[in-house]
Amino acid sequence: MNAPTKPVRRGRRQRSAEAPLSQLEWQDIRNHMAPLAALSADQIEAIHHASLRLLEEYGLEVMSAEARDLFRKAGATVDDASQVVRVDRAVIEAAIATAPAQFTLTPTNPQHRLVIGGNHIHFGLVSGAPNAHDIRGGRRSGNFEDYKKLMKLGQSFNVIHFFGNQSLAPNDLAVNTRHLDTTLVNLTYTDKVFLSMSIGAGRVRDAASLIAIARGLTMDQLRDDPTAITNININSPRKFDVEMAAAAMTMAELGQATVVTPFTLMGAMTPATLPAALTQQNAEALFGVALTQLVRPGAPVVYGGFTSNVDMRTGAPAFGTPENTLANIAGGQLARRYNLPYRTSACSASNAVDAQAVWETQMALWGAVHGHGNLIYHSAGWGEGGLVADFEKVIVDCEMLQAMSQVLKPISFDEAAFGFEAHEEVEPGGHFFGAAHTMERFEDAFYSPFLSDWSNNENWRDAGARTTTERAMDIWPKVIDDYQAPPMDPARLEEMQAYIANRKQQIGSGEP
Amino acid sequence: MNAPTKPVRRGRRQRSAEAPLSQLEWQDIRNHMAPLAALSADQIEAIHHASLRLLEEYGLEVMSAEARDLFRKAGATVDDASQVVRVDRAVIEAAIATAPAQFTLTPTNPQHRLVIGGNHIHFGLVSGAPNAHDIRGGRRSGNFEDYKKLMKLGQSFNVIHFFGNQSLAPNDLAVNTRHLDTTLVNLTYTDKVFLSMSIGAGRVRDAASLIAIARGLTMDQLRDDPTAITNININSPRKFDVEMAAAAMTMAELGQATVVTPFTLMGAMTPATLPAALTQQNAEALFGVALTQLVRPGAPVVYGGFTSNVDMRTGAPAFGTPENTLANIAGGQLARRYNLPYRTSACSASNAVDAQAVWETQMALWGAVHGHGNLIYHSAGWGEGGLVADFEKVIVDCEMLQAMSQVLKPISFDEAAFGFEAHEEVEPGGHFFGAAHTMERFEDAFYSPFLSDWSNNENWRDAGARTTTERAMDIWPKVIDDYQAPPMDPARLEEMQAYIANRKQQIGSGEP
Repeated sequence: MNAPTKPVRRGRRQRSAEAPLSQLEWQDIRNHMAPLAALSADQIEAIHHASLRLLEEYGLEVMSAEARDLFRKAGATVDDASQVVRVDRAVIEAAIATAPAQFTLTPTNPQHRLVIGGNHIHFGLVSGAPNAHDIRGGRRSGNFEDYKKLMKLGQSFNVIHFFGNQSLAPNDLAVNTRHLDTTLVNLTYTDKVFLSMSIGAGRVRDAASLIAIARGLTMDQLRDDPTAITNININSPRKFDVEMAAAAMTMAELGQATVVTPFTLMGAMTPATLPAALTQQNAEALFGVALTQLVRPGAPVVYGGFTSNVDMRTGAPAFGTPENTLANIAGGQLARRYNLPYRTSACSASNAVDAQAVWETQMALWGAVHGHGNLIYHSAGWGEGGLVADFEKVIVDCEMLQAMSQVLKPISFDEAAFGFEAHEEVEPGGHFFGAAHTMERFEDAFYSPFLSDWSNNENWRDAGARTTTERAMDIWPKVIDDYQAPPMDPARLEEMQAYIANRKQQIGSGEP
Repeated sequence: MNAPTKPVRRGRRQRSAEAPLSQLEWQDIRNHMAPLAALSADQIEAIHHASLRLLEEYGLEVMSAEARDLFRKAGATVDDASQVVRVDRAVIEAAIATAPAQFTLTPTNPQHRLVIGGNHIHFGLVSGAPNAHDIRGGRRSGNFEDYKKLMKLGQSFNVIHFFGNQSLAPNDLAVNTRHLDTTLVNLTYTDKVFLSMSIGAGRVRDAASLIAIARGLTMDQLRDDPTAITNININSPRKFDVEMAAAAMTMAELGQATVVTPFTLMGAMTPATLPAALTQQNAEALFGVALTQLVRPGAPVVYGGFTSNVDMRTGAPAFGTPENTLANIAGGQLARRYNLPYRTSACSASNAVDAQAVWETQMALWGAVHGHGNLIYHSAGWGEGGLVADFEKVIVDCEMLQAMSQVLKPISFDEAAFGFEAHEEVEPGGHFFGAAHTMERFEDAFYSPFLSDWSNNENWRDAGARTTTERAMDIWPKVIDDYQAPPMDPARLEEMQAYIANRKQQIGSGEP
């Protein structure tokens, strides 16, 4: 279950006597299938134009004076009384034109670098949940011990490529300094890319500084070889908070990446139609992307989409709905319209890891993967519409992500793959079980899941008639037991600890 | 829950005070998104050429002398000792060229007619299961009472467009005559298209004859306005049984439709690679398609794919695997290569209606729908790799099929859909719940599922913390309670009963 120490052949399973499950090795997953197109080219252009009209005529309320100034200097119309910034299409289009179509983030383990853009598909662990849940332990407030366990799970599964900002909220830690504690866990328990907390300039600078120490780089070196990434939300509709703007501007200055994700639940934060929601998402996302480029042209930035709908009877957020699935697909069409990398999600709303949880996740996931989402957030362990990080769901989701990654695996079409030599051996109406052609491929012919039970009904009942979710209960503790921490230079660890001690003192004494 | 009596606006929900659930109305679902392409154009051509080579060099063992004669007359090389028929590509290509790209089947209720081909997507109920299962009733051998219940469910759900051959095996009925009993149920409990049993000429002729009576048509009229359809399997690898050939030839003579589906579980009935399996599927399917055209050029026929893999450790069939998903997509590419309608499936192997059952079904379903499967078999209620027809799974699957149909629903892009008037009402950072634009769309803004539970965790726990599958337990009996039989002319019913009585006497006395 360790991270591989050398480049590995993709799609091969990694087994060891001690491993509790066989899993696929780390892969740079690419989706060679053409992306699904939920909307026609004309419809995409209509959204493009409507979103530019929204920016021109309605604008965004921008609470950061610094951000308003940047837009003013770029040619936008700023009303300082209302703080509303209206931007002509030429200004927006010029600003976003400098954003890179693709960039690379390199974490402490360079094998786990992410190329973000094109048809590269990366899966992220659940992020931001206020609670934790597993069947034996029940539902509880998010805490630091569960946080560490989730990071161990995410480090152990090769199909998890990155971590969102805080898999869950460690509510037992001080609010103002918990980002330091979680960042240290991220950098010592894992060696993959993670997102840093985006509330204000201080937090993202702390994350970048700790990453630089962990990688043994100066901040200048990190600027040219980025690792850090954060996600900012627009406070939809059309409101841009001070802290989010500060985080985005700081990350751009540091040469680190920002994901700009409008929080657009249809019917609540947007009008109750998909064209209006996508128009608003597009306007808000482009505005945030432009801000990063006004700070530093060429700064790495990602177009984020998080458009789903509410239950109109109750206002409850819903995920994995048909509308969410379509938005995931259409968001990719829009991001590609601007040559921007694309972040989307695979969420669900069910209260249990049951049929509903799985179909919602699958619907969103197919939309995300076949909409060519480059960063697919919340791919494993997200439950209850984001209110819990669920340990059994991590297991179920990792199985589903592995299966999806196998759908995307290139297939050999060499001469032998056509199997004529097998037909020489097998008579009409016979079977291929014992054919040499089959035996040669016995180990790796097909994807071998770690969670599926394909035994017959009698054997399944004799073994206790356990559901998939019940089987998952036994898997995640074993994965945590088998977890091994990635290597970390003790001197760098000490330096990170000293940095954190110093910052805790500053923050405690009220310094920013 | 009745079938609509007039053309209905698609996508609108149908509600009544008595209805146990709100469901979408009957729709002619079309997938306007371009189909997914699992394989490149070059790879499809490679499979095409390899499959023609398989037919030329290896051929099929054809047990029907009549079928061998048809191929011989068409120019094939027939070895009567081994019964192997080898067919040059020119012969196959000429034969399949007369098959229609699209055709229409009209059942007793013309509103439920199916256009088969193009981007029309139709979902079928589980078919052929030897056992029945529901949570309260447990697992039992297939029986006529459960058969009737399943047909009531399939008739009640508008998202079920057709029935495969025998939702389950009514093992309590006499083997030789049960097709008459089930066909009468199909024609009196339902008014949708159903597949007839394909074992021999007599059974398909019986089904066509009963359909003609039910519709008040002569057999000549039925020939020009077909209703009947059957599915024949090739006994893969490369063996064509007498009874299946007889069924296909009879259906072609009668002007009724045949689906030709090689039974190609990779590793067992084909070599253990996807290119070999698709090559064999393609060769066998084209051979069967050609047979129908040699009988009657222009006879309606469907290219069938049923390629999945076995668990290589145990030989157990697996469904909803990455390989099955890819085969569902690639099968559509191949069918379109020949301008033929495409049949595929959405199957699962899990022993329970649990997470595994749902992800397997979703994986296969996405491959089927976005591979543009025109007839998607086993879309609702299939469990345990086909060994049970499961009542709770019917409910879960119908919910998932409704959601998928909503993904495919065309979206209005009129001026109002862009929601600018709502932005006039709502301040930055506000919400749209009370906006006039939202209120106007309150009822129908988003898809409203009948099975999902989006309540918060506390309310869900207070209500008993029931999983989705447990909730489904209460739904299907209510749907059956609310079921209403479609209308049937009493004189036609009597004529069908008389036909059946006569046929039972003939079959009982040994007549074919």
